[in-house]
Amino acid sequence: MQQKIRIGIAGYGNLGRGVRSAIAQNPDMELVAVFSRRDPKSLEQRGESLRFVHMSDVERYKEEIDVMILCGGSATDLPEQTPQLAALFHTVDSFDTHAKIPEFYDRVHTAALLGGKLSVISTGWDPGLFSMNRLLAQSILPEGKEYTFWGSGVSQGHSDAIRRVPGVRAGVQYTVPVQAAIDAIRSGETPEFETREKHARNCYVVAEDGADENAIREAIVSMPNYFADYDTSVTFITQEELEREHSGMPHGGFVIRSGVTGAGSKQRIEFGLELESNPEFTASVLVAYARAAVRLAAEGQSGARTVFDIPLGHLSPKSAAELRRELL
Amino acid sequence: MQQKIRIGIAGYGNLGRGVRSAIAQNPDMELVAVFSRRDPKSLEQRGESLRFVHMSDVERYKEEIDVMILCGGSATDLPEQTPQLAALFHTVDSFDTHAKIPEFYDRVHTAALLGGKLSVISTGWDPGLFSMNRLLAQSILPEGKEYTFWGSGVSQGHSDAIRRVPGVRAGVQYTVPVQAAIDAIRSGETPEFETREKHARNCYVVAEDGADENAIREAIVSMPNYFADYDTSVTFITQEELEREHSGMPHGGFVIRSGVTGAGSKQRIEFGLELESNPEFTASVLVAYARAAVRLAAEGQSGARTVFDIPLGHLSPKSAAELRRELL
Repeated sequence: MQQKIRIGIAGYGNLGRGVRSAIAQNPDMELVAVFSRRDPKSLEQRGESLRFVHMSDVERYKEEIDVMILCGGSATDLPEQTPQLAALFHTVDSFDTHAKIPEFYDRVHTAALLGGKLSVISTGWDPGLFSMNRLLAQSILPEGKEYTFWGSGVSQGHSDAIRRVPGVRAGVQYTVPVQAAIDAIRSGETPEFETREKHARNCYVVAEDGADENAIREAIVSMPNYFADYDTSVTFITQEELEREHSGMPHGGFVIRSGVTGAGSKQRIEFGLELESNPEFTASVLVAYARAAVRLAAEGQSGARTVFDIPLGHLSPKSAAELRRELL
Repeated sequence: MQQKIRIGIAGYGNLGRGVRSAIAQNPDMELVAVFSRRDPKSLEQRGESLRFVHMSDVERYKEEIDVMILCGGSATDLPEQTPQLAALFHTVDSFDTHAKIPEFYDRVHTAALLGGKLSVISTGWDPGLFSMNRLLAQSILPEGKEYTFWGSGVSQGHSDAIRRVPGVRAGVQYTVPVQAAIDAIRSGETPEFETREKHARNCYVVAEDGADENAIREAIVSMPNYFADYDTSVTFITQEELEREHSGMPHGGFVIRSGVTGAGSKQRIEFGLELESNPEFTASVLVAYARAAVRLAAEGQSGARTVFDIPLGHLSPKSAAELRRELL
């Protein structure tokens, strides 16, 4: 029997819990320990039968873990943790600040090379699966136009922005693709869209007692960068309704490329996701790329890699011969 | 300036002409010559400004061509041509007899290794892009169920079967996915379908003068393997209408996987194509993989490869750094 891939999780929020669930769905993997900056005792008290270890002890697990899945946030956790851990372990992360990826790549690449380790950065679904489909569609249809739509789904950044508005107790924001825009593209058009023509923003807000709802609404819809360029709806609801109806983390979206070939034949490539749980899905992508990281390392590779660099066959537990026979 | 990738085309039917068009859309490539078993003079007489060469002279072009794109059929051409040419050139083909791929792979792999060449086999969209999406979706959502739908599009094999029915002068068959089946999957169900519940078959037939239309219809709808297991419609039309309305080669389809993660969150991954020209699109995929073949060979690789073995970044003319910056 082949030895299981031994996985560590660094960071135990929604994404880390999703990784734990995803590992349980993959019989060729096992979870060794969860690393966190929180007191391991506070995590153990939840009654979960997991080994929790303080992050400061992570180096002691070098020999026990084949690949570390980094589940921190892109704003402050990963820029620090990935280069640090990439020198010690093969790693996978979901660093998603698109504009900073080149710099992040360089830092992780250097650290991983020095440690002789393999790091897969910026995987998940965007960056990740969506990026792969953008690349694939552009390479196949060089004459064409491409669109990415996000949603319907909860945007954490925009939900946070709502909660900073004076008088707001709680709130959640859904990014919603405009169906008319998608229909136009699917009908073969390649329009240029204004920002507000592609996505709408729907906010569900719990106001503090006595707060001025009109003032809150105005503060949200006119907020620059976040809402001013969009058609934004604001619906006031109760705390109970928020908890009952809006506690999930659905998301999804599409990458669509319309191109032409030959004497003007229209061709369309479309990739879409509809996710009831964004963090669980992202976690499932990370876990598949953890398998790929181990395989690349076994080939003697080291340094940073992205989804563009990795053969798809490395994501599957099946052998190359099985894949050719069953899936090609 | 970087030297262009020098391409040869072997076989000049619909697919070969599609490859010629696709090369013209990719500024990093140039077409050197078209190889055919037909008399080059008969091809030149069409007035096309191309170099046509008889297949028997192909070996003389070893130094002039970086990659040969094989555009013959899977029934008889490719099983013979790919192993033969794979020993002489880097090659790309669209061998699509799914059941015979393992044996084909072995033969091409041996030939290419002996010649020190790199052969990408069985690319296009199915096998090809659809296979990649089956693999990707299964790897990410191991608990789930997957569906492939084809169409709406013209099936050459079924059109040929119609034309063999006594009394039929000409005809074309469209494979059409059943919308109710797709809707059920998209709504989150994971049903088991009978063959007839997934696809319908619509036939447009030109009868010979005086032929018995009812007999033709009955012969078609009851034909085993091809039509008996499907809901098949037969519409009689004139030769003029056939030529006017049914001379295109549209196709497409979907790969959909519905899975669950965590405590039962439903997740759906969907990849779809809508193609006005099936051969031109397949050709565009072959051309992108020709670029990948040259890159893999430049890395020192040889032997046969499938879409599962090739990093997506190799399909693009852009550098890895550009891809990370622009598309990730």
